[in-house]
Amino acid sequence: MTFPFEIKATDGAARTGVLSTPRGEIRTPAFMPVGTAATVKALTTDQVAATGADIILGNTYHLMLRPAAERVQRLGGLHKFMGWEKPILTDSGGFQVMSLSNISKVTEEAVTFASHIDGSRHVLSPERSIAIQADLLGSDIVMQLDECVSWPAEPDRAREAMLLSARWAQRCKTAFGTRDSQALFGIQQGSTFQDQRKESADRLTEIGFDGYAIGGLAVGEGHEAMCEVLDYAPGMLPVDRPRYLMGVGKPIDIVEAVARGVDMFDCVLPTRSGRHGQAWTWEGPVNLKNAPFADDDQPLDASIACPASRDYSRAYLHHLVKSQEILGQVLLSWHNLAFFQALMAELRAAIAEGRLDAFRRDFKARQRVRV
Amino acid sequence: MTFPFEIKATDGAARTGVLSTPRGEIRTPAFMPVGTAATVKALTTDQVAATGADIILGNTYHLMLRPAAERVQRLGGLHKFMGWEKPILTDSGGFQVMSLSNISKVTEEAVTFASHIDGSRHVLSPERSIAIQADLLGSDIVMQLDECVSWPAEPDRAREAMLLSARWAQRCKTAFGTRDSQALFGIQQGSTFQDQRKESADRLTEIGFDGYAIGGLAVGEGHEAMCEVLDYAPGMLPVDRPRYLMGVGKPIDIVEAVARGVDMFDCVLPTRSGRHGQAWTWEGPVNLKNAPFADDDQPLDASIACPASRDYSRAYLHHLVKSQEILGQVLLSWHNLAFFQALMAELRAAIAEGRLDAFRRDFKARQRVRV
Repeated sequence: MTFPFEIKATDGAARTGVLSTPRGEIRTPAFMPVGTAATVKALTTDQVAATGADIILGNTYHLMLRPAAERVQRLGGLHKFMGWEKPILTDSGGFQVMSLSNISKVTEEAVTFASHIDGSRHVLSPERSIAIQADLLGSDIVMQLDECVSWPAEPDRAREAMLLSARWAQRCKTAFGTRDSQALFGIQQGSTFQDQRKESADRLTEIGFDGYAIGGLAVGEGHEAMCEVLDYAPGMLPVDRPRYLMGVGKPIDIVEAVARGVDMFDCVLPTRSGRHGQAWTWEGPVNLKNAPFADDDQPLDASIACPASRDYSRAYLHHLVKSQEILGQVLLSWHNLAFFQALMAELRAAIAEGRLDAFRRDFKARQRVRV
Repeated sequence: MTFPFEIKATDGAARTGVLSTPRGEIRTPAFMPVGTAATVKALTTDQVAATGADIILGNTYHLMLRPAAERVQRLGGLHKFMGWEKPILTDSGGFQVMSLSNISKVTEEAVTFASHIDGSRHVLSPERSIAIQADLLGSDIVMQLDECVSWPAEPDRAREAMLLSARWAQRCKTAFGTRDSQALFGIQQGSTFQDQRKESADRLTEIGFDGYAIGGLAVGEGHEAMCEVLDYAPGMLPVDRPRYLMGVGKPIDIVEAVARGVDMFDCVLPTRSGRHGQAWTWEGPVNLKNAPFADDDQPLDASIACPASRDYSRAYLHHLVKSQEILGQVLLSWHNLAFFQALMAELRAAIAEGRLDAFRRDFKARQRVRV
């Protein structure tokens, strides 16, 4: 059986609904905070949950290297280890093997790589990725291992990776088998080539997954090129299953992707920005280091029910950032996650009420860069 | 009027009671977490309050330099600025001027110094210290400006500083005047010289303060030498007013000082240790980086009602510390503050029940260094 996915309303290509898992409901469109190394950086799981996050993401690459997937299993699985009871989606490890590890070699069989931490050699095959995610970490939503080419990619190179990803998709599906309380998502590849995206979608759909991710975007192609792919890519995937745009993104990216039929997102942006003094607002990102904030007694956003957004002045946050206080990183990470969740809630409401176009226009008009 | 101080029970020289302030009751013996730059490092004020802290300490030196005391006043005072509604004690700035600033020059009139942040020149007089603490920051308990000599000190040098401190005590008292909702504490000096401690105490008592601090300890003299001074120094101070041992300390220091009649403490140790991977326990400090913790599925202390102490395994904390995750610094700082507050609660209960000697013996037997 697969996780029930109820689409409650549509507005153009956009949808809002609920993906039901044994660990709780995921309201879509959903933003998943990234908990790379078994921690959403700088925040307690209570703080993350308080922002309204229904699900977080864990990184297989990081966790297999440290503390090691077998250790997480011995300690009761990733949920227990990090103290998060709601759903967790894990990525396959493939993307980060290729972007973070010192050396990586891709063969038909597997990816071989050297750890960026200690240089130790590891092999990640489709079967091993599934075992780590599903059996050792105990993820709720497991991602297939894929090969994500960098951008720009030659068509032949992109197609080669797309086809390898499709063959690995089948091996992941076989390794995953049938499970009562875990789901497996396939990943569409094909770079910015429409025919390859279609071929990828068809191959995945034929295998059959509980959800479908759009991979290979947000790798440097830019907002416009990404939107062009999103004009057609989501529609190639089964309408009755969740669609997950991996590694995206800025609020404006999310709004545009939701309008094109995407249901799930993950990105390090809110927490990474927060650690660097940047706060996301309805008017765009602001850098709290800037001098005008030194005497600004207003909170970041009193309308957001998060202490970090509501209970501290920008002057205080400015002071913390200037003083390089950890609490500044904590509060800005927390606010940013709360802002992203507030954005998702607004998107869900706009779709449910059939006013997504108006929301999107207003949002784009307000979002500007003040720094 | 002064803050009512009700001593509810004594056990030998030790006392337990309540110091009542308009912003709330301070149960004594009390430990004050240090909120140097308007933040108890790495923690939200809610997290600090949840450990049972009745009062925190703010540093005048840091705050006068950044964000500047006048700015804090414009933003509504220190309580509002940092989001802490319970009492705040501020130090006078003197100790840190002498230990942190680039250049400092002490005259009868004031201390002149250069900021360690930007080299800017500042003058801190007794009157200015009171104005910063009482009028600009809005502290609840204001400390006199004093001169704290380093250790070891020649008797003549120590006496010179003690006498200057006594003259500054009078000037601080005059500048402070009479206030309805703020208290002023004098500071006993005299290094490790009993006659000077007595002379200092007599001069302060003659001026009359709402409370009396023991300064000039925990400056390198070591546990034994400190205990020797504490054998006589607290008893020289008025019995009906709170006694505050500044900058102390390790749990064992606190236990010994409480047994000798001290009521209040502050120290950066729990938060500083926490940021460096060290957790304080009933068995002493432990370094979470150590390999044996990698597979330790037990919490730091399930008996302490703090999420950081109770809800995460040592294996998880080990992982966070090894991975240099901010959350590791947060959770260990939080646990350490909760442990220190648990220690104070145990001390209060032991005094109230007349079993402090037994508690002290047990405590010393258990406290050992495991790292």
